[in-house]
Amino acid sequence: MQIKLDKQRFIEQMKKQSTIGSTSGGGLHRLALSDADKKVRDWFLESMEKSGLEVRIDKFGNMFGRRDGTNSDVEPVLIGSHLDSQPNGGIYDGSLGVIAALECIKTLNDNNIKTNRPIEIVNWTNEEGSRFQPTMQGSGVWAGNLDINEEYQKEDKNGNVLEKELERIGYKGKEPAEPSEDYHSALELHIEQGPKLENNKKDVGIVTGIVGRRWGAVTFQGVAEHTGTTPMENRKDALVAAADLITAIRRLPSSLGSRTVGSVGSIEVEPNSINIVPEKATVTWGIRDPNDEVVDKGRTKVIREAEAAAKREGVQVQWEDRARSSSIRFADNTVKAIEQATNQLEYKTQTIFSGAVHDAANMADICDTGMIFAVSEDGKSHTEKEFTSWDDCFKAANTLANASLFLANN
Amino acid sequence: MQIKLDKQRFIEQMKKQSTIGSTSGGGLHRLALSDADKKVRDWFLESMEKSGLEVRIDKFGNMFGRRDGTNSDVEPVLIGSHLDSQPNGGIYDGSLGVIAALECIKTLNDNNIKTNRPIEIVNWTNEEGSRFQPTMQGSGVWAGNLDINEEYQKEDKNGNVLEKELERIGYKGKEPAEPSEDYHSALELHIEQGPKLENNKKDVGIVTGIVGRRWGAVTFQGVAEHTGTTPMENRKDALVAAADLITAIRRLPSSLGSRTVGSVGSIEVEPNSINIVPEKATVTWGIRDPNDEVVDKGRTKVIREAEAAAKREGVQVQWEDRARSSSIRFADNTVKAIEQATNQLEYKTQTIFSGAVHDAANMADICDTGMIFAVSEDGKSHTEKEFTSWDDCFKAANTLANASLFLANN
Repeated sequence: MQIKLDKQRFIEQMKKQSTIGSTSGGGLHRLALSDADKKVRDWFLESMEKSGLEVRIDKFGNMFGRRDGTNSDVEPVLIGSHLDSQPNGGIYDGSLGVIAALECIKTLNDNNIKTNRPIEIVNWTNEEGSRFQPTMQGSGVWAGNLDINEEYQKEDKNGNVLEKELERIGYKGKEPAEPSEDYHSALELHIEQGPKLENNKKDVGIVTGIVGRRWGAVTFQGVAEHTGTTPMENRKDALVAAADLITAIRRLPSSLGSRTVGSVGSIEVEPNSINIVPEKATVTWGIRDPNDEVVDKGRTKVIREAEAAAKREGVQVQWEDRARSSSIRFADNTVKAIEQATNQLEYKTQTIFSGAVHDAANMADICDTGMIFAVSEDGKSHTEKEFTSWDDCFKAANTLANASLFLANN
Repeated sequence: MQIKLDKQRFIEQMKKQSTIGSTSGGGLHRLALSDADKKVRDWFLESMEKSGLEVRIDKFGNMFGRRDGTNSDVEPVLIGSHLDSQPNGGIYDGSLGVIAALECIKTLNDNNIKTNRPIEIVNWTNEEGSRFQPTMQGSGVWAGNLDINEEYQKEDKNGNVLEKELERIGYKGKEPAEPSEDYHSALELHIEQGPKLENNKKDVGIVTGIVGRRWGAVTFQGVAEHTGTTPMENRKDALVAAADLITAIRRLPSSLGSRTVGSVGSIEVEPNSINIVPEKATVTWGIRDPNDEVVDKGRTKVIREAEAAAKREGVQVQWEDRARSSSIRFADNTVKAIEQATNQLEYKTQTIFSGAVHDAANMADICDTGMIFAVSEDGKSHTEKEFTSWDDCFKAANTLANASLFLANN
């Protein structure tokens, strides 16, 4: 059996969601639990109800819509992603995965297809982590990886408390924020956020896992002195040590593995004045690889490089770990369902290890999970310039629909 | 003839000025044209009048006090520095030079010494350049290196206009802000702001010149991308190029000359997020050397290094010059007067080329000028931790008094 979404309607729905919280630059500014998020949730809720879904909102605002299967005793298939966006982000990101899930349901309805298993679609609360930290908060609470009471207390930069914001927009639901039953499997469609599919001229990406990741910070402490009067040999320049580490981290991936990435994303310097030798410099770094051992080795090398840089410049050094997530390998079962769908649809595919973390990482803690990537032109993401052609959106959505159908009839 | 300041009174006066705009950390927060600056000016004005000086305030707030010589037709000797401080700066800095100048006059009075030439003492407006830019503003206007009407319009970060602030504190005087006549010579006493005198166990520094200086900024423009999903070979990381340049500038002085110093003092990165490849990085650099040709060669090397760093990382690069000042060699006449004074006082001295710029640089455009440095413990400056022992302050002040006496009787 093969199903095909109504392309016209699918594009209309994508366009419709992109008008809610839209920016003048053609992007989306739909921060979690903002007025725009409330508006898109209201619209999505109404759309689910119109499509005959049984809607549940959990206590963390995660939105579920259930379509019954012919067999009410078997575990359901869960599909979806998130509707929130980064500040001035793009209109595809997670929204594509939610709209595609909804269109799946409508297509099954249109064709009067009864699946063996129930199918549930989901919109996770605050995947982006830009207004409230951390990222993937809703799915994290749901999967038991985050404590709901701790997360409720999180504040945005204006001091707004998350739980109050959930109440304010009317999405602190009544259902427990946890799996309501055992799930058979889960699928998430998301844009790639990288250039591989486009570079390799593929239609759809079959994600086989998510890389392991470590984040950390290194602080160098030197001595603030006048840049004109302090002899070079007397200086303890914290910025020089930081620069030394930054270039070392640029070289690091090539000494670790072909799939390792790593970089320094931010630096803070004090006093940061043209006329004063920098006293303090803090850099934040990240290393990722499909193999957790490689990531750990990378962290060790970062620390060694930091120590060597500090020694060379005669400054003090301190480091801290900021985040760690283990790599995930998606279950054969779900990966094969996606392969089967793309084979049937005759799409050109490539297997990809995701360099970014997604809600799917939390779903994978609960049941067999898989991910489908849509092409991202130039790999752009988290910007108004993010772009996926409607053709590519449609191919990825069709893949989701057919893979879900396989799993739901499994 | 040799004179000696009243040590007790000198220390009392140093302590007295340090209470005006004092910080809880034992420093000074006496920004130019602030209420604290008004207060110290009022006290200094009264002190000058009490010492029998003929006071003039010019249109830019520079304060002069004149003690007549026996010969009213000859050019006077000018001595002084500045009473304003950096934010949370030290109590010595320029204040030592102003208090020492005032004590010189009092000692001449005490001893009924008539000098051949008149002696004028001066407190220059806004030497520090921290509230209003640029540095050495008062002496710059006076020497004709800055345009008074342009400088009047300068605003602090709260939008307060300099001219209005001068009026507000009552120090927009009536005299033209220019040399009122030809000057014979000028001397400035200042703390070293570097560690050389202390390292070499000297009592006083005889400054033979001020280094040439170039400041500039380099901006690298890369591409902001997801740090997890962008292959290493596709990245254009602006921070990596900046780090490459920072380490190159660390190496630069040793390839230029033994008296060259250079560093990067500040860096600004966008978007400066742990999870995004840095798109833009701007660094500010400075190079100094007693030889202007070496400084210019340094600038050329900085630009070449920036271009090479940009090329290696595949990013764009732009640079701009921010400031340039030529090196100054003080006149033999004034340097010898200082040497003569220290010989007579039997102080251990060392000749120093100043790495920092001072009001003396502007005075040197008008007449023969010299500088005396007092010991700075650990070379600390522009911080509450700045420290010069009263003994070292006194030695430097006595040097100023006797060198001034030589010049005034010359």
